[in-house]
This record gives sequence, C-alpha cells and structure tokens, in this order.
Amino acid sequence: MSTAAPATPYLRVDVDRLRANVTRAAEAADAAGVALRPHAKTHKSAHVARLQLEAGAVGLTVATVGEAEAFAAAGVTDLFVAYPLWLTADLAGRLRALRSSGARLAIGVDSVAGARTAAELLAGSGTEVLVEVDSGHHRSGVDPALTGDVALAAGDLPVRGVFTFPGHSYSPGARAVAARDEAAALSAARTSLRTAGLDAGVVSGGSTPSLAHTDTSVLTEVRPGVYVFNDAQQWELGSATPDQVALTAVATVVSHAGGRAVLDAGSKVLGADRASYASGCGRLLDHPDARIVQLSEHHAVAELPGRLPPLGSKVLVVPNHCCTAVNLADELWPSTGEGPWPVTARGRNG
Amino acid sequence: MSTAAPATPYLRVDVDRLRANVTRAAEAADAAGVALRPHAKTHKSAHVARLQLEAGAVGLTVATVGEAEAFAAAGVTDLFVAYPLWLTADLAGRLRALRSSGARLAIGVDSVAGARTAAELLAGSGTEVLVEVDSGHHRSGVDPALTGDVALAAGDLPVRGVFTFPGHSYSPGARAVAARDEAAALSAARTSLRTAGLDAGVVSGGSTPSLAHTDTSVLTEVRPGVYVFNDAQQWELGSATPDQVALTAVATVVSHAGGRAVLDAGSKVLGADRASYASGCGRLLDHPDARIVQLSEHHAVAELPGRLPPLGSKVLVVPNHCCTAVNLADELWPSTGEGPWPVTARGRNG
Repeated sequence: MSTAAPATPYLRVDVDRLRANVTRAAEAADAAGVALRPHAKTHKSAHVARLQLEAGAVGLTVATVGEAEAFAAAGVTDLFVAYPLWLTADLAGRLRALRSSGARLAIGVDSVAGARTAAELLAGSGTEVLVEVDSGHHRSGVDPALTGDVALAAGDLPVRGVFTFPGHSYSPGARAVAARDEAAALSAARTSLRTAGLDAGVVSGGSTPSLAHTDTSVLTEVRPGVYVFNDAQQWELGSATPDQVALTAVATVVSHAGGRAVLDAGSKVLGADRASYASGCGRLLDHPDARIVQLSEHHAVAELPGRLPPLGSKVLVVPNHCCTAVNLADELWPSTGEGPWPVTARGRNG
Repeated sequence: MSTAAPATPYLRVDVDRLRANVTRAAEAADAAGVALRPHAKTHKSAHVARLQLEAGAVGLTVATVGEAEAFAAAGVTDLFVAYPLWLTADLAGRLRALRSSGARLAIGVDSVAGARTAAELLAGSGTEVLVEVDSGHHRSGVDPALTGDVALAAGDLPVRGVFTFPGHSYSPGARAVAARDEAAALSAARTSLRTAGLDAGVVSGGSTPSLAHTDTSVLTEVRPGVYVFNDAQQWELGSATPDQVALTAVATVVSHAGGRAVLDAGSKVLGADRASYASGCGRLLDHPDARIVQLSEHHAVAELPGRLPPLGSKVLVVPNHCCTAVNLADELWPSTGEGPWPVTARGRNG
C-alpha cells in the first residue's frame, strides 16, 4: 500500500492532536469517576478505536448492527448499539452471531412494542438492553416516566440501564442547559426503573458539547464521539479550540473566480451539514477569518480577507461535522506518513 | 452475490422509471438537435452509464479524474472532466494514461494560469480543453469576455469549445431565467473565442432544472445529471413529478417518539443537503404531505398528518439531492431483483 498522500481532496488526521484529544477525555472521565464508552460512528476506524480502548475506554458505542460487526471483526469485544433498533429475524440473527463470537453486547429500546420484539427475537442470547429516554433533543427516546414500562416489556433480556443523547447541546449557549436536562431525564428514568422493580446499573449520556458539564452524580457512563477529531461545529459552539481540530480535508485552490478561493473539496468530501448556527459550510484551519460561503459537490467557495491563497496551493478545510465527512472517505491519511488508515465501518448503515 | 435486499436503510432504483427518464431526455435532446453528454457524478454507476450511452449519449461528463478512470475502466471511451482542474504532474500522468488507453478526453480550464499549466503538463497528449464561463451561478468559470484569453493560454492543446453550469437554476422560479443567462454567457464566450481566432465547436451547458428551457440556437451539447433519478429538489422545483423519482432510500419506522415517525435512514444515507427552498430534509414518496423535519446521522424524523406508518413498516424516502445520496452507498438495489449494482465511482473525488 502506498504511503504517499493521494491527490486532493483527501482527509488528513493530525495524529498528535488525535492522541491529545483521546487522552484528555479519558483522563477527565477517570477523574470524574465515570466510564467512557466513545461513540465510534465518528471515526469508524479500528485504529482510532484501539487508541481509545488503550486509553481506558470500557467499550465502544455504535449506531448500527453493521458498525458493531465491523468493530467486532477488528477485535472489539464490548459493544453498545445506542439506537432503538426495530428487530427483524435477520438483524436478530446477526446480533446472535456477534454474541456467539464472544462479544458483550447491548442494544437500545425506546418503546414497549420495540422491547417486546427484541425480547421475542433475542431470547436467550444474552444481549442486554438499555432504555432510551428523551432528554430534550426530541428525536427518539421515551418519556423518562415510561422507562419502567419499556424495560418490563423486554422480558427475559437483561436490562443494563438507561441512556439518552442530549443532542440539544448542539446550539449556542445550550451546553450546560442540555447537560442539566440530561441529568434530570436520566434521574427520572432511573426512578421509573426502580418503581418497576429494576435497577439501572448503567446511566449513560454524553455528547461532545455537553461533556464538560456532565452531572457525574447521576451519570455512570458517557458516550461522546466527535471529541476525537472535533470540527467546525465544536469550534463554533466553543467546545473545542482550533488547535484541537485533528481532522481536516486537504484541498487545492483550483480557481480564483469572482475574487474568491474555489477549492476542490466539496460536499462529497466535507458533507453538507450546516446547522442553523454555523457561520458557513466549513472553515479553513489556517485562515480563521475565511468562510466557505458556497458548497457544491466538488467546489467549496471561500471568502477571506486579504490575499487569496495562490492557485495550486493547498489549504486545510475543517468540515462542519466530522462524523459525516469521515463516512464519505474510504481512508484517512495520518500526519505521521505511515500510510492510510481504512475507514473500517464506512457506509455500514444497516 | 446475494440478490436479497439488505437490511434497511438501502438505496432502491425503480428501473422502469430510470429507463423512462433516460429515454425521455435522450429523445428530447435528439428532437432539439443537441448532443447529450450526461453528468455521471449523479449515478456513478457503470450500469446506468451503459443505459445512457445505449440511448444515444455521445459520451459522459464527470467531475474528477478519479471518476474518469472508473468509467474508462468500465469501457466508456469519451469522457469530459467538466471541472477547472489544477493540474499537477500526478494528475497529468493519470490523464495521459487514460489517453493511452484510447479514451477521447477533455478537461475544463477557467483561468489563464490554469490553462498554461495544463498546456505545459499535457502537451502532446491530445487532451482537449473547454473553457468554463460563469453564467450566473458564481462558482467557477471566467467572465465570458475573457474566454479567448484563457483559450489562447492553452497553447497547443486542442480547444473543443466552451461550457457553463447554470446552477442558479436551482431556485424557485429561476429555471427559465437561468437558461437565458446560460445562452447569453455561452454566446458571449463563443464570440470571445472567435475574436481570438478560435472556433467553439462545442457549446455546452445544461442542468436538470433548466433543461426544458435550453436555448438550442446557442447550445450544441447538454450535460444534465440528476434527471436519471430525480429527487426532492427537482420535485419541489417543478422539474420532475413524484412519479419520475427513480431513487429512494428504503427505511424502517423504528420509533413513534413524540408522535412522529422516526426512520432509520439518516444523513449518512440521504445526505444532509438542504437548499434554502427545501421544505424539509427529504420527502416520503408515498406520503406527499409528510416532511422530514429533523435529520441526524441515523435518524430521520418525519411529521405527517393522520395515522403514522406502523412501527417496523418500511417507507420510501426521497433524498433532497440524489447525487450526494448515491455517493454514500456502495450499492444500488434495482427493483428488478437482479442483485445490486455497484456504485462504480463512489468516493472518487480526486
């Protein structure tokens, strides 16, 4: 395999920054006395997973059965599919195969009907469940007061605990508020479980923006993902500094049309994520005043004050959302020049 | 290779609709007396390319050298990289290799400096150039009046003609206006070429929204891409009807949290494109009143009137932008049940 960097655009990992990000989160979790179970949907990389586990992560979080399979094949033995899976015979068979291979495994449930289906199709497999509750992001997850009902519907499946994703932390000024909502919802969920005669061994939450505000008197586990790489969203939310951004797209300035820098990294490299608070479609790491004001599949048009970077020169683009950027690439190119890291679980959506 | 459809979410192609879309555009181009050179970045599929060429396309348009390589390897012999490439020795070597394999090849240039670099690195290769002009989309492309200067800088490289992308057609009510702007810019570019003593053999434009308004007294070639599949953008712009949508993501209803339908097709399947005019993050083909109001990587939250589709049922999601959705998948699943079509040029960005 060639170790020479490919033609632009490609994704580059600053390995020193990655290692610093991994270590910082591991030490913070350790100091707070909570388990760290990083969400691997961000990096989808067996290499990065190994760094996280070596730094003390108790296991990985994944979003899909396909991701669980990819990481199990790479040797990861403790996997939580933090998603309200609707089980079919096919999915259940794949989960049973993972269990048979020796993996410790848990899945999410967020409805009585979903829990019943899981109970039926996974009976005797030793797959554990966690009940997902809505803590204010209003995506999936039950009302915390109904946690006990959902857990009881899981029948013989061991109930490991409760979880939530405080995704409303992705908004300016909302990081601490979202962490408070998270703790309140998880606390209510734990109470609901106890009322149903069950114990919440694991109380799991966490998102990269809210991480620093985690209420460790309630949570026993956190599942941040983005912190390994960071991105323009974290930069703009204030949960990462530019020198903590470990993932960039290396792009070439192909045109100065209209007095702007036209780059060859478009939405098929960066992703098209643009949250309402985003200042543009991505940032330039070495030009903090630049903004990507127009994005198409193979063009990013950047406006910046002063002299434009020369035609043919390379710039480092910070994607708005690193998780979707990584999922577009087959390989990540580490700054150490050791040759590409495969994106092990790329495209494993199902 | 298994021909059974995989676990959701996955991309499905309605083959009858695809064939009808391919035929309709081919017949319209034929009737108008313009060449059809479809943009293959939409489908990235050797299978779909074959359908287009069999229906009379003169060759393919691609966005990158990597796409050109992928389609040349699949047997396509006439390729236009409609992009202002900034050539390096590496890219030039790859283009020379394509020429050596027998492909007819052209690339875009949009600056004197870019044309000079191409002239130097591709001398004697027989690679042709087309000058890109800006017709109002304000992305790449020179002022049409400067077309002759750029063409002269291409030195010994054969100048095939001029091209533009009237991308400002992607706005409500702008389809006919963008086509008029396209014709005016290309006409001015042709004049500029003539003043420089060169002939524009090919005058190339086209986008799916503006296609029906193409001024065939100016253009000799059109390069639409999206028309093969269509998507929610075309539906909402009025350039396609729902029954012309040939690509959908098959998704499972995994949750009814908050009284909404939570689907397992998120931005890693649909793409996160959301134009300012889009009514949501995607549509449901069989529920025209539904809107995807919230999209994350593995969740699409749909609001719809009346009864929600049942938990565990499947729905067909129309992505906002089919080009980015296809580029997320390794395979497309045809409705004929013949087993998956590989996305031949997936991720070939460089």
